[in-house]
Amino acid sequence: MALWGGRFEGGVATSTQEFGASLPVDKHLYKQDIAGSKAHAGMLAKQGIISDSDAQAIAEGLDQIEAQIDAGDFVFDINDEDIHMAIESELTRRIGEAGKRLHTGRSRNDQVATDTRLAVKALTKDLMEANLNLRHVLVEAAEANKKAILPGMTHLQHAQPVLFSHHLLAYYWMFTRDYKRIVAAFEAADASPLGAAALAGTTYPLDRVASAHAMGFKQIIPNSLDAVSDRDFLLDLHFACSTMAMHLSRLAEEIVLWSSSEFGFITLSDSFSTGSSIMPQKKNPDFAELIRGKTGRVYGNLVQLLVTCKGLPLAYNKDLQEDKEGALDSAHTLAQCLSVMSGMISTMTVNADAMRAACKVGHLAATDVADYLAKRGMPFREAHAVVGHLVLECDKRGCQLDDLPLEVFKEASPLFGADITSALDIDAIVAARTTQGGTAPTAVAEQMRLVRASYTADEAYLEGLPYIVPMGQGA
Amino acid sequence: MALWGGRFEGGVATSTQEFGASLPVDKHLYKQDIAGSKAHAGMLAKQGIISDSDAQAIAEGLDQIEAQIDAGDFVFDINDEDIHMAIESELTRRIGEAGKRLHTGRSRNDQVATDTRLAVKALTKDLMEANLNLRHVLVEAAEANKKAILPGMTHLQHAQPVLFSHHLLAYYWMFTRDYKRIVAAFEAADASPLGAAALAGTTYPLDRVASAHAMGFKQIIPNSLDAVSDRDFLLDLHFACSTMAMHLSRLAEEIVLWSSSEFGFITLSDSFSTGSSIMPQKKNPDFAELIRGKTGRVYGNLVQLLVTCKGLPLAYNKDLQEDKEGALDSAHTLAQCLSVMSGMISTMTVNADAMRAACKVGHLAATDVADYLAKRGMPFREAHAVVGHLVLECDKRGCQLDDLPLEVFKEASPLFGADITSALDIDAIVAARTTQGGTAPTAVAEQMRLVRASYTADEAYLEGLPYIVPMGQGA
Amino acid sequence: MALWGGRFEGGVATSTQEFGASLPVDKHLYKQDIAGSKAHAGMLAKQGIISDSDAQAIAEGLDQIEAQIDAGDFVFDINDEDIHMAIESELTRRIGEAGKRLHTGRSRNDQVATDTRLAVKALTKDLMEANLNLRHVLVEAAEANKKAILPGMTHLQHAQPVLFSHHLLAYYWMFTRDYKRIVAAFEAADASPLGAAALAGTTYPLDRVASAHAMGFKQIIPNSLDAVSDRDFLLDLHFACSTMAMHLSRLAEEIVLWSSSEFGFITLSDSFSTGSSIMPQKKNPDFAELIRGKTGRVYGNLVQLLVTCKGLPLAYNKDLQEDKEGALDSAHTLAQCLSVMSGMISTMTVNADAMRAACKVGHLAATDVADYLAKRGMPFREAHAVVGHLVLECDKRGCQLDDLPLEVFKEASPLFGADITSALDIDAIVAARTTQGGTAPTAVAEQMRLVRASYTADEAYLEGLPYIVPMGQGA
Amino acid sequence: MALWGGRFEGGVATSTQEFGASLPVDKHLYKQDIAGSKAHAGMLAKQGIISDSDAQAIAEGLDQIEAQIDAGDFVFDINDEDIHMAIESELTRRIGEAGKRLHTGRSRNDQVATDTRLAVKALTKDLMEANLNLRHVLVEAAEANKKAILPGMTHLQHAQPVLFSHHLLAYYWMFTRDYKRIVAAFEAADASPLGAAALAGTTYPLDRVASAHAMGFKQIIPNSLDAVSDRDFLLDLHFACSTMAMHLSRLAEEIVLWSSSEFGFITLSDSFSTGSSIMPQKKNPDFAELIRGKTGRVYGNLVQLLVTCKGLPLAYNKDLQEDKEGALDSAHTLAQCLSVMSGMISTMTVNADAMRAACKVGHLAATDVADYLAKRGMPFREAHAVVGHLVLECDKRGCQLDDLPLEVFKEASPLFGADITSALDIDAIVAARTTQGGTAPTAVAEQMRLVRASYTADEAYLEGLPYIVPMGQGA
Repeated sequence: MALWGGRFEGGVATSTQEFGASLPVDKHLYKQDIAGSKAHAGMLAKQGIISDSDAQAIAEGLDQIEAQIDAGDFVFDINDEDIHMAIESELTRRIGEAGKRLHTGRSRNDQVATDTRLAVKALTKDLMEANLNLRHVLVEAAEANKKAILPGMTHLQHAQPVLFSHHLLAYYWMFTRDYKRIVAAFEAADASPLGAAALAGTTYPLDRVASAHAMGFKQIIPNSLDAVSDRDFLLDLHFACSTMAMHLSRLAEEIVLWSSSEFGFITLSDSFSTGSSIMPQKKNPDFAELIRGKTGRVYGNLVQLLVTCKGLPLAYNKDLQEDKEGALDSAHTLAQCLSVMSGMISTMTVNADAMRAACKVGHLAATDVADYLAKRGMPFREAHAVVGHLVLECDKRGCQLDDLPLEVFKEASPLFGADITSALDIDAIVAARTTQGGTAPTAVAEQMRLVRASYTADEAYLEGLPYIVPMGQGA
Repeated sequence: MALWGGRFEGGVATSTQEFGASLPVDKHLYKQDIAGSKAHAGMLAKQGIISDSDAQAIAEGLDQIEAQIDAGDFVFDINDEDIHMAIESELTRRIGEAGKRLHTGRSRNDQVATDTRLAVKALTKDLMEANLNLRHVLVEAAEANKKAILPGMTHLQHAQPVLFSHHLLAYYWMFTRDYKRIVAAFEAADASPLGAAALAGTTYPLDRVASAHAMGFKQIIPNSLDAVSDRDFLLDLHFACSTMAMHLSRLAEEIVLWSSSEFGFITLSDSFSTGSSIMPQKKNPDFAELIRGKTGRVYGNLVQLLVTCKGLPLAYNKDLQEDKEGALDSAHTLAQCLSVMSGMISTMTVNADAMRAACKVGHLAATDVADYLAKRGMPFREAHAVVGHLVLECDKRGCQLDDLPLEVFKEASPLFGADITSALDIDAIVAARTTQGGTAPTAVAEQMRLVRASYTADEAYLEGLPYIVPMGQGA
Repeated sequence: MALWGGRFEGGVATSTQEFGASLPVDKHLYKQDIAGSKAHAGMLAKQGIISDSDAQAIAEGLDQIEAQIDAGDFVFDINDEDIHMAIESELTRRIGEAGKRLHTGRSRNDQVATDTRLAVKALTKDLMEANLNLRHVLVEAAEANKKAILPGMTHLQHAQPVLFSHHLLAYYWMFTRDYKRIVAAFEAADASPLGAAALAGTTYPLDRVASAHAMGFKQIIPNSLDAVSDRDFLLDLHFACSTMAMHLSRLAEEIVLWSSSEFGFITLSDSFSTGSSIMPQKKNPDFAELIRGKTGRVYGNLVQLLVTCKGLPLAYNKDLQEDKEGALDSAHTLAQCLSVMSGMISTMTVNADAMRAACKVGHLAATDVADYLAKRGMPFREAHAVVGHLVLECDKRGCQLDDLPLEVFKEASPLFGADITSALDIDAIVAARTTQGGTAPTAVAEQMRLVRASYTADEAYLEGLPYIVPMGQGA
Repeated sequence: MALWGGRFEGGVATSTQEFGASLPVDKHLYKQDIAGSKAHAGMLAKQGIISDSDAQAIAEGLDQIEAQIDAGDFVFDINDEDIHMAIESELTRRIGEAGKRLHTGRSRNDQVATDTRLAVKALTKDLMEANLNLRHVLVEAAEANKKAILPGMTHLQHAQPVLFSHHLLAYYWMFTRDYKRIVAAFEAADASPLGAAALAGTTYPLDRVASAHAMGFKQIIPNSLDAVSDRDFLLDLHFACSTMAMHLSRLAEEIVLWSSSEFGFITLSDSFSTGSSIMPQKKNPDFAELIRGKTGRVYGNLVQLLVTCKGLPLAYNKDLQEDKEGALDSAHTLAQCLSVMSGMISTMTVNADAMRAACKVGHLAATDVADYLAKRGMPFREAHAVVGHLVLECDKRGCQLDDLPLEVFKEASPLFGADITSALDIDAIVAARTTQGGTAPTAVAEQMRLVRASYTADEAYLEGLPYIVPMGQGA
């Protein structure tokens, strides 16, 4: 359907048209486009701009088209260029003249911005759910493995023993911050551009608030130029996906490490492992690696949109057509990654014995031995040096700190007494770190209270969201 | 000063040490480091971990060192590796043994996280101010040029006439969204990691809330592993800077266009222009171009940190030392760009006549002519086609729509009457776009109410912030 | 088909399998996969590792499968995970036991690397063609518009007049450099990994050189670990696409500017313009904008792979599965952009009169006036200042340099004589810039000789390439 | 010094000037700027454009200034805006009028492009040296550890045993490819823009080839517009640095893994390790982590310039001033990383026993057992399944394949005979992989021949380079 043919004498070649068409991407927004058109038509009728019967015919026609696409029976024609024209031309075929009145007081510029915002609301809602689910799984795994102690690491070197549950909760908090970013993207998207028309508003007495509310938008965008050219809400989505992907990549890295022969801290379920086409013995943490690998894709999508928006003068420019593919891809990728990670965590076997055995290596008690001296009056810096020499002695003897005889301790400092052994016990070391946020079981129990409170609040936010047009599955 | 020498037999080569040293960057955080150490020492004394006299000696020594750095009299030694050791070793030189007790219950891991968070609070506060200032300048320019009308563009083609003030306010809203992102970065930074020690908490009875409050932090981070490895707050800062840079690049692009001979819509002040070393006539919008060019730097810094954080296992890894340089650079860059842009906007001359003259070109009335027909019953799609043909006719005649004789209109459609001329008047076209957010003077006046409300709220947020340790100028 | 089931007891959930499957992307490499398998089977037979009849059955079976996919009749099953298994399992269905011998001495690790390298050879060859075509179009446009002079700009301000052909040739050279980068990607891909097996080579007496030559590879990769983990050739492709996209974005930006009302230097063909759904008068340079907008996508894909590869230990990791989608997308995008740009340039109308009229504005002769003084003995820096003041005088009078009476010149400097007018003539100014690479017609004619030589050389390279397995169209 | 003051009435504020100044960055190019100016002046005199005595005064003045900067005695003044003016104004102070003639037939646009290209030639030459040095160190380490066998990994799971030397040589080849990219950047930079002037060439009879050769450039750039706006050679440098950083990040990751307690494959020298401020036992692979972390910075710099160049119209725009800082930073970063990595590799201790012990774990012989069956007639796919079940049996028994009694093998397949044990021996497995590029000692010896040939060729290239102006150390 020629929506702008009047002023043109030549046509566009097919290959050029394919290059320019956004249909392959924006057809996935058909439910959003239809919801927007129904709200627009209803408002036009309410304002007396079109007749009620036209509005009704439009609504019914659109409902039929939606059902057809839902069922996978709609044939998209690349000549329609975009989802807006695909639906509008089909509507006009079905209901005639009334269909040609639908676009009154509207431009594709505000229409596509409306569709995209509705889509981001749906995508971010799904991400909130997937994010909450992973956090739930992390909390459950922390609860189920309360006694497991692994060597906490810095620089991938054994540092101090920590509760495995404490380690998992560190990730809980990362994803909790990401939830905030998803919400920020949702709220940035939650304002209606409809009625901004091409860029300047229209001469029709539209009621923008009415159509906004009919689509479930909280408010309207207060400047028509901004309404058609703003894509910040997509950048907010990309950013939320990027930090979330980064956090997932860290967890995935640890899963890969932990399931190696060298670490052996966990065993992944067969359901989340794959084999090799040549090496019969292999059981690979493919899904963790793939999650880690997807970080690049998500970062790349963020970069893409930032680059595309750079230096664009107001108002709408065709460059912006490139805005949707990456956003859909990143949101879809994250939904998958969160779900696969949740499955992987909830089905893995935690090898607490291997973790504990690893705590025997690497002089994990060294800090506590230094603290022992410091608490007996030696300045911490000096205590640090004394213990450093003891560790060097261990390395020469090929033993660990708790293998050293008491006299070696006493030689190093007369402050050492027989009670030094208690500073060398892994459980005691963990239990002693009772500062707020520390790894002692008592501190972790207190932390768990905060975990639950934050979870409940975020869950309540999600549950409190009004109806949101879902992404369609038929296109 | 050898802070970890005990266990080592060999030393590090100078060039390697230089490679590893963070001092050239983190020395700029000396005020933050000192504020953190004073809070830590005060808390240690309050908890009875060190004596009151030690704490007092530490505080006085640190105050002297701060004054010395402020004055530019402190000699930094690359052997100190980082700002923490530079200050601590000087402190011990000054006050002796008490200095060696300062690091009790603390690690550089929580210390550097504390310093960086305090710095982000200072940097974001400065960005809030600079952001508000630019928004103020935009509002003033909008107020001062209420009558100017320029050809609103899409695809850099004349589309419909819009008020210049409406155009400027579109930018106001972009920067208003950025303010939210700066606030998000501020609030993400506003939690204390101090007391997390290396990664697991400590065995000393620290009061983390007390030291947090002494430094002006709103709360403490509830998980020690997360406390030392989280750099999300820096990513939040990078993201806020990136969207702000993107918005600035759009405005800068328009300023470059507008000050070209071809557009001539504005004349930049000599104070914001430069010349050429070879071409005596040149007056270049260098500063607008440079602002546009800086977008790359800010995006690059965002990418840098995202890449660095990818796939890092818990907890602290040395990779994270790379976190500060880009953040300081982006915050500094944005502060400069916002300030220069404010100066450029507030001193430019608006050539309203040239803008209005440009409105004569490009058939800006075409939409209104189509609306004219649609309001008289023709479906909009058909009206669009009719006007398209009229425009083609104009192009052939080399004239504009309002140059066409009435009979040509009537020939195109009998619905045209003599009153069509009113649809062709630029002022009338602008005045007719009265929908909410539209470009009509009445709608813009209403928009200005929302502008002022948002400005007042954001200003109040800034004014309500408690004391924040400022960035030091002496290092 | 379970290619690694032996060691596994549990299965993988469908959604997880979908997440892990590379089939939706790598099915596009079916021709490469089949060519590789045929070469492998032929070599296995030649080496006596499988029988000749098995090899023949394999080759015939693979030919049939290729024909089926070419025809669009092959049903891909996501359970096959990747294109290798999709084809191998179909082969075994068709020819039985012989099919199970195909994977002897091979792993998917070397197989997928082989396929991807063959694909990059095909993609880069296509890009060489498209690149040459655009360069050809640029040369033709330069030849066809030899007399057109436009105001050369720096900072988007009129600087000095230049030949339009000279301006177009600047782009010719940019794309010529890109050709080198495409060739570098081609040559990086042109080495066979086949025979590296999983990571260590195999125990079969393979002849890697033979299979390499059968596939058209120039050489083999000399290290098996490197063979399965190297993706540099894809990065080379991404980089070539990125610089090419950047150059296209610059040309696109100029096309957008030139086709604006303000510039009016060119008129795009209707075949490369689009309209508006609301504004009947609009004729938008959509395709130039879209080319500019695609820059983000191409940069994003480069970032994606760089990020994915970061920090991966040897040898193959599943992260690398993410390597193909972006590469196919960028190569496809560039092929389209180059083709659309070629069409746009070859069909545009050059408005030489408008260009020449624009040369009247902006004191384009100022440098020549300064040179006039310098050639008469005044140090250039002083001459520059004298002319600067003359320009300021013009601005005050609202005129151009050639409107100034001779006495004003003489007042500014006694060195000025009546012959100053020749320094003010646009054609004379252009003709005077005869230094090598300058804009004088004589210099441009000389430049054109170099243009043709470089074109001929690059064309010869392309024509000299041996047979390359093309990308398949059936999947 | 006011180099373009004539046409301006107002001045620029100090803060704005600071924002616009490139001096803090481009002062590092003082040697390049001086070499360029000397070549330009010499050519001007040769062409009779300035007098010989002026040229001599200029050359002597410039030599003095260079010596002064070398000695660290030159005071840079931010009012000079850039290095060109800093030097030219000082020159004029020293030698008077002759200094004002230096800029004849030259613009800062071609001057800065010249300086930057000369700098890239120096930087890439240094990178070639550092790259060769690391490759040399890798070869030496491979030679010194010929017998060490470690478990080759895919997915960080034990796959097949490989020679440690083979593993190191994989990195040799990565860096060999990077060398090609550095050379490409060098050659891209090796063409002179001088004489392009502002953008269009000049009216002076310059001899561009003469000044090019005087500066050591191989050729001149054939288009003046391209000469002043091309920054591709910097992108080539960024790309070479990016792939090299990526390869370094992979090696660094392995070093971090290998020096963990879990792996224990290597022990880093104390000279390339650091400790902890709180944990006395820690010995951290800080430098490997920092190299890995620097990847982000280098990628970020690449992104920066790609973004900055996007969409810039011809010819010079101020955005391009942002081109140098990132390039200097990336080149400097890589030079450091290559050097530190070389030191780390050449001083590390290889724990061959730990590597060999690790080979006992993970059923490394599984592929060879499957090959054993396949060579006795079983199709490989079936053999794979049989061995998969044997591995499962091992896992249940908690043993490795070579612990299984012969009857269990025979039960799994009657094809197994007593000679199966030879397929289970680690040394035999390695020795059997004799295909070209395989890990067998014989194959690696053959590979080493190729290694040496490539090294010799690359070394010869470097040694064949003519004199290149080095980077200055005084600024």
